[in-house]
Amino acid sequence: MSNQGVLVVLSGFSGAGKGTIMKELIKRYPYFLSVSATTRKPREGEINGKDYFFHSREKFETMIEQGELIEWAEYVGNYYGTPKQAVEKQLAEGKDVLLEIEMQGGMLVKEQFPNALLLFVTPPSFTDLEQRLIGRGTESKDEINRRIQRASEEIAYMSSYDYLIINDELEQAVQDVHQIIQSEHMRVSYQTDMIHNFEQEANNNK
Amino acid sequence: MSNQGVLVVLSGFSGAGKGTIMKELIKRYPYFLSVSATTRKPREGEINGKDYFFHSREKFETMIEQGELIEWAEYVGNYYGTPKQAVEKQLAEGKDVLLEIEMQGGMLVKEQFPNALLLFVTPPSFTDLEQRLIGRGTESKDEINRRIQRASEEIAYMSSYDYLIINDELEQAVQDVHQIIQSEHMRVSYQTDMIHNFEQEANNNK
Repeated sequence: MSNQGVLVVLSGFSGAGKGTIMKELIKRYPYFLSVSATTRKPREGEINGKDYFFHSREKFETMIEQGELIEWAEYVGNYYGTPKQAVEKQLAEGKDVLLEIEMQGGMLVKEQFPNALLLFVTPPSFTDLEQRLIGRGTESKDEINRRIQRASEEIAYMSSYDYLIINDELEQAVQDVHQIIQSEHMRVSYQTDMIHNFEQEANNNK
Repeated sequence: MSNQGVLVVLSGFSGAGKGTIMKELIKRYPYFLSVSATTRKPREGEINGKDYFFHSREKFETMIEQGELIEWAEYVGNYYGTPKQAVEKQLAEGKDVLLEIEMQGGMLVKEQFPNALLLFVTPPSFTDLEQRLIGRGTESKDEINRRIQRASEEIAYMSSYDYLIINDELEQAVQDVHQIIQSEHMRVSYQTDMIHNFEQEANNNK
């Protein structure tokens, strides 16, 4: 565990701003953003291995069978998932890895990586969330209602997360997430090498 | 739990600098420092209720029997302990309470306050600890050896704490402790009121 990176799961309601927080973190700090695998076709300008790992359905299903994905889900006919190997490699090298995933995926990550740090991004209130979705003006009324409905179901996941990040001011939220990750490195579970050194030094001293 | 203060236990090796960290925290931030009860006689200038609560042995033993102390111990013929009521009052008012206590006491606090935040202050290495104790020049060689011996026994407690605070530079250590306490308020267990509000708003919305 010592000198391992922290695996950070960032989830939250649609419209809570987790994507923006993620971008700011990556821009400022040496966090490693996990690249998802998907079966959807690349859009113009998207680069394989940077935006996504683009795979065929056959390949993706083989990856599922071989246990090569930490979590995966199917949306609108396409698979999306988190490749395990890249995440484990970065963690072993001491890099903190950020995953922006849905809550069901977050729960699966926690099962496989019990030390994962689960952060739930939310506006200060449900009313704020509704206002933000309406205010964006980019979705139809039906789509907004669908998202609000989904958010009200997702509230049930909040207490399964470790921390709530209240995204009222973006700058504060970015600092909060960064601070929580930095503090995590001081957790005893990340300091086992240090404790071991103390034991050895004290023994040599006898 | 919501809007409750955080109960912070600060322990560490003799010579690790926990007292200095404590003083800096109190000076800069609105933390509440718990005042210990004791049966030792007040020294000149010590004020009852500020430095200690000074009690007779009889009174102290009644407090033990009545469960009025979170933890207590006897050193060199005198009792020392942490009064429960004052701590609970401050926590209920939302104030973070700092306790500077021995590790055995820390374990007792954790039993009674499972959400207590246990911080272990240590120099970067055991050799550093020895150097500091020798360098102070205020203790006899026997006393230094006694403290080193005790520290080597106390290593066993490190992994029962939540975080290790490596006090290499005082300023960094003070900031680390402050940051960890601040992050703690974002923990889901301190945000139950907020989650409850979300549930209510979502229900009213149906």
